[in-house]
Amino acid sequence: MTKKSVALSGTIAGNTAICTVGKTGNDLHYRGYDITQLAYECEFEEVAYLLVYGKLPNLTELNDYKNLLVTLRTLPQQVLTTLEQLPKSTHPMDVLRCGVSVLGAIKPEKDLHELGESYTIINLLIATLPSMLSYWYHFSHYQRKIDLHAPQALTLAEYFLQLLHQHTPTPLMVKAMNVSLILYAEHEFNASTFTARVISGTGSDIYSAVCGAIGALKGFKHGGANEVALEIQQRYTSVEQAVADISARLAQKEVIIGFGHPVYTISDPRNVIIKDIAAQLATSKNNTLIYEIACAIETLMWQRKNMFANLDWFSAVSYHLMEIPTAMFTPIFVMSRISGWGAHIIEQRQDNKIIRPSANYIGPEEIQFIAIDERE
Amino acid sequence: MTKKSVALSGTIAGNTAICTVGKTGNDLHYRGYDITQLAYECEFEEVAYLLVYGKLPNLTELNDYKNLLVTLRTLPQQVLTTLEQLPKSTHPMDVLRCGVSVLGAIKPEKDLHELGESYTIINLLIATLPSMLSYWYHFSHYQRKIDLHAPQALTLAEYFLQLLHQHTPTPLMVKAMNVSLILYAEHEFNASTFTARVISGTGSDIYSAVCGAIGALKGFKHGGANEVALEIQQRYTSVEQAVADISARLAQKEVIIGFGHPVYTISDPRNVIIKDIAAQLATSKNNTLIYEIACAIETLMWQRKNMFANLDWFSAVSYHLMEIPTAMFTPIFVMSRISGWGAHIIEQRQDNKIIRPSANYIGPEEIQFIAIDERE
Repeated sequence: MTKKSVALSGTIAGNTAICTVGKTGNDLHYRGYDITQLAYECEFEEVAYLLVYGKLPNLTELNDYKNLLVTLRTLPQQVLTTLEQLPKSTHPMDVLRCGVSVLGAIKPEKDLHELGESYTIINLLIATLPSMLSYWYHFSHYQRKIDLHAPQALTLAEYFLQLLHQHTPTPLMVKAMNVSLILYAEHEFNASTFTARVISGTGSDIYSAVCGAIGALKGFKHGGANEVALEIQQRYTSVEQAVADISARLAQKEVIIGFGHPVYTISDPRNVIIKDIAAQLATSKNNTLIYEIACAIETLMWQRKNMFANLDWFSAVSYHLMEIPTAMFTPIFVMSRISGWGAHIIEQRQDNKIIRPSANYIGPEEIQFIAIDERE
Repeated sequence: MTKKSVALSGTIAGNTAICTVGKTGNDLHYRGYDITQLAYECEFEEVAYLLVYGKLPNLTELNDYKNLLVTLRTLPQQVLTTLEQLPKSTHPMDVLRCGVSVLGAIKPEKDLHELGESYTIINLLIATLPSMLSYWYHFSHYQRKIDLHAPQALTLAEYFLQLLHQHTPTPLMVKAMNVSLILYAEHEFNASTFTARVISGTGSDIYSAVCGAIGALKGFKHGGANEVALEIQQRYTSVEQAVADISARLAQKEVIIGFGHPVYTISDPRNVIIKDIAAQLATSKNNTLIYEIACAIETLMWQRKNMFANLDWFSAVSYHLMEIPTAMFTPIFVMSRISGWGAHIIEQRQDNKIIRPSANYIGPEEIQFIAIDERE
């Protein structure tokens, strides 16, 4: 993506203490912690806690937090009934937008100034997004009303995989999901987070801000990119075919989704981590073709265009090997990014500013009004 | 509102040919036309057509447009079922957010590059927002499933009043509603419109952008202001009491909602128009107290603070005299502003830019990671 295709690029829209992206060209920090250590050493809940509450939990705090999230998983009947209205063909991002919107109507935020309530709602959303998606998926596809408790699944990663596949996930799958959720959790003033902040800036509620953010993340220029990445990888049945075809497309100046980044200049620090996960999944499943194709295209893009793979490229490989339906890639992004959105919503409220830019007018000047029966 | 409470104030976030606000300090133009003439001489549909299609319709085009909107009023059963889930206590803005979200899941946008489809969806939303609100209102309050056809109501103003009150509105009521809808239709890069543009900028669909915009408009610093204005006016049982109490509050430096504006410097050009409507409604209903209280506070605010009444102040009086429940004031704003949002969504798509600002980092620098069992 070139600078020209981004509006407000480099313009400061507010203060934040949550995240820095690419300060040295290829680093990412959540509240001062390097993403590499967080991804390798934490569970998602630990990072969500860090983002939302501002500090890493100790073991007791983490266990309490995980237990709290387990208790919040079920959904009010009105939300379930709404999810049952949505046909199989519905875009899963629309499912989440509807689920969050109705949940916000049934359990509305009462006092915007009550920080404890803000935490409660953010935690409710962290706990129920996997429930919404999975309930709708099984109901619309298989007319099954699944049980949303799953108390044996202590982490969100296990819970989502258990609900989706209806069996206990392997430790490697759980690890892969944890890493992925951590890598997608936060990224400063990206378009969906900025949407949440603009909505929060008016004094609106958390559910409204999250509905807007889900809508923004749905866009193919934002969260939709990992789905497009898989489409590219799946076009090919061999490494040779992939290299030949991508070479031809590059000669035609086609943009290849999954490469480059508007903020990172050297590399995406998340790529090496998710690539490692993708390799482990490929080996464990004895299915390395798509990983090899992705690696070959990565090498080609660097040689020909000096472009590096971003997080989306090997996330696509990983999710595919985890047998996650492609249309759920962006919803998983939501399950993760809700932690970053929540932190930003709280921060925007504390900043207490409405976000209201100006426009450059390029339309007609004063036009003489003509009465309707005299118009041509 | 002081400049300090606004982020990105005066910063250009994009080009627009839709609207200018306060270029001379107290004027508003939609696509080059002065708001004063539009408000006095048009129906809402005429102005919606101007905003969405970029030109004023001739008589045939206007009639075709009105007939088209009449045919679009009913809602899919899945949307009705969802609305039936939402209790009486639901915030009506949440009702609209849920209605639009589910409508977007049931009748999704298929091709973002197809301008004809964009118009179809914007028109569907213009036609159905009053249906959603009224259906939910009668169902949740009176267990009544109202008929959404109302073919005798040819304009949106008549349609909404007919559905809400379940009887034919007077010509003055229809005129008042038309004027109000026109005045609220568009206002450049305000926070809700900007939200719609940020969401559209990612390549997301119209329903997602509108859900986000509804959420932003819900905030008390944005669309919620006319509801607060009525609360203020209704506190008093006489002009004298109002003047004495507001004087005391001003002495305590309390902010009085309904006055001043971040963009207009001289006056709000919409105030004189809606004030005239409020006066006509008060006279016709033989109930002038609230209008007189509003006028007295307006005079006081000008004398003491040099602050002018904005659109919200006498809109509150007008809606109250039209017997519209207070919680519906902001939803009426949505029914109107959807025309402006639609125009901006189309414009943002044509501009083809993602909106992604930067942040000023104020958090901790590189923190040493400590393993969880060593944390305090």
